[in-house]
Amino acid sequence: MSLQIRGWKHVFKLDPARSLHDDALERVCLSGTDAIIVGGSSDISYDNTVDLLSRIRRYELPCVLEISTTEAIVPGFDLYFIPVVLNAGNTEWITGQHQRALRDYGSLLRWEQMIPEGYVILNENCTAAALTEADCNLTEQDIMAYARMADKLFRMPIFYMEYSGVFGNMEWVQQAAKVIQGAQLFYGGGIDSPEKALQASAAADTIVVGNVVYDNLEQAIATVAAVKVTL
Amino acid sequence: MSLQIRGWKHVFKLDPARSLHDDALERVCLSGTDAIIVGGSSDISYDNTVDLLSRIRRYELPCVLEISTTEAIVPGFDLYFIPVVLNAGNTEWITGQHQRALRDYGSLLRWEQMIPEGYVILNENCTAAALTEADCNLTEQDIMAYARMADKLFRMPIFYMEYSGVFGNMEWVQQAAKVIQGAQLFYGGGIDSPEKALQASAAADTIVVGNVVYDNLEQAIATVAAVKVTL
Repeated sequence: MSLQIRGWKHVFKLDPARSLHDDALERVCLSGTDAIIVGGSSDISYDNTVDLLSRIRRYELPCVLEISTTEAIVPGFDLYFIPVVLNAGNTEWITGQHQRALRDYGSLLRWEQMIPEGYVILNENCTAAALTEADCNLTEQDIMAYARMADKLFRMPIFYMEYSGVFGNMEWVQQAAKVIQGAQLFYGGGIDSPEKALQASAAADTIVVGNVVYDNLEQAIATVAAVKVTL
Repeated sequence: MSLQIRGWKHVFKLDPARSLHDDALERVCLSGTDAIIVGGSSDISYDNTVDLLSRIRRYELPCVLEISTTEAIVPGFDLYFIPVVLNAGNTEWITGQHQRALRDYGSLLRWEQMIPEGYVILNENCTAAALTEADCNLTEQDIMAYARMADKLFRMPIFYMEYSGVFGNMEWVQQAAKVIQGAQLFYGGGIDSPEKALQASAAADTIVVGNVVYDNLEQAIATVAAVKVTL
C-alpha cells in the first residue's frame, strides 16, 4: 500500500473550499507532479470534495483525499490519508473523530487504501493549529520525539511536518529524515518558488505545494521541474 | 518482535506497589504461565519496579514491563509494553507522556523490545479510568471501532481490553477477536477462578490474571492449568 507513495517527490495539495479555474487545474494536473492531495482545514464539504475530485479525474494522475472531516469522506479516490495530529491538545484530532468514523464506516473500508499520517503542526498561527489546539512551541528534540512516535511507536507510513503557510526550519526537517527509518517524510508549508521547492526536497522525501497554486500559478508549476530535475 | 508474544495464552500481571511473599512469587513464576507483566496504576516507582524485577529474575520465564510512568522505566526487562489508551479523554495518555519519553530516551531505546498496546479501559470505576479520564460509556460498536483503530489504523501488535477488577462482557471480547486481523487480543479483568479463565481464554488470545494473585493465590495458580489444558 505505502509502496504506491514511495516514489513521490512532489505533490500538489488542492483545497476543495477554494476555487481554481479549469485552465489552472489542467496545468496543475499536467505539470508532472506525482499526485494531487485534496484537503483543507475549513469549509470542506461532501459537495465541494466530490466536485474537485470529478474535475481532477479527467487527468490520469493519482488523487488522494486527506480526510479532515468525516462529513466529506467521498468514495472514488485512489488513496485516503488519515491525519493523526500527534501534537494536538485535544483527543478529537488523535483518536476521537477516527473512532467515530471507524464505528460508522469501519466494516466498509478498504484498508489497503487507507494511509495514516503522523502529523505535526508547526505553525502556531495556522487554522489547523487553532482547530486542533496544537502545541507548536516545540524544540528540535520535541520534533524528533514526534518523528520517532510516528515511525517507531505507531509505525505509520508517513511522518508529515506541516508548517502551513510559512517556510519551515529545513535543518529540523533534515534531522527528522535522519531519525526516521520506515516512514516517508512529507514536508509542507511556504513552498512558493522553485528555490524553496529544491531546498525542501533536499530535506524531505515528498514535498507538498499548496497555497502558491492559488497565489502564483507560474511559480507553483515551476516547483515541479525544480524537484524533478534532482531525480 | 511480536512473534515472541504470539503463543502466550496466559500471563500474570504483578503490581510493584503491592507486596507478595517470596513463596507466593515462586508459585506464580513456576506455575507454567507464559510470562509475567509488571505494571500497575498507582504508586509505581523506579525502586519498587527494580525490586520486583530482580525477584522475578530468579526464574526463567519472560518478564515484561508495562510502562505506566516514565519515572519507572527500568532496564533489564525482556520486553516493554507501551500502553496507548485509545479511549482516554486526555492526550497525556495517548501521545503526551510518550512524546516526552521519546524525547528523553528515544535515541537509546532498543525498538525491538518495545511493543505498543492499543488499550481500551472498560471499567469506569477503576483507578486507570479516573487517571486517564477514559470514556467508558461505550457500546459494542464503539469498542469494535477501537479494535479496528488499534489493529488497522495504528497497526499495533496488541489490542487490550481492560476491565480491571470486574469480569467483562465476553461477547464483546469475542466480537473484537473477529474484527481484528493482525493484532493479538489481550483480555484482563476479574479473572479470579479457573472457570472465568477458561471463558476469557475462549474469547481472547491472551488472558491477564492480576488481582487474584493477591487475594487468593490458590485460585490464581489454578487459572494456569485451566487455560493450558485447552491448548
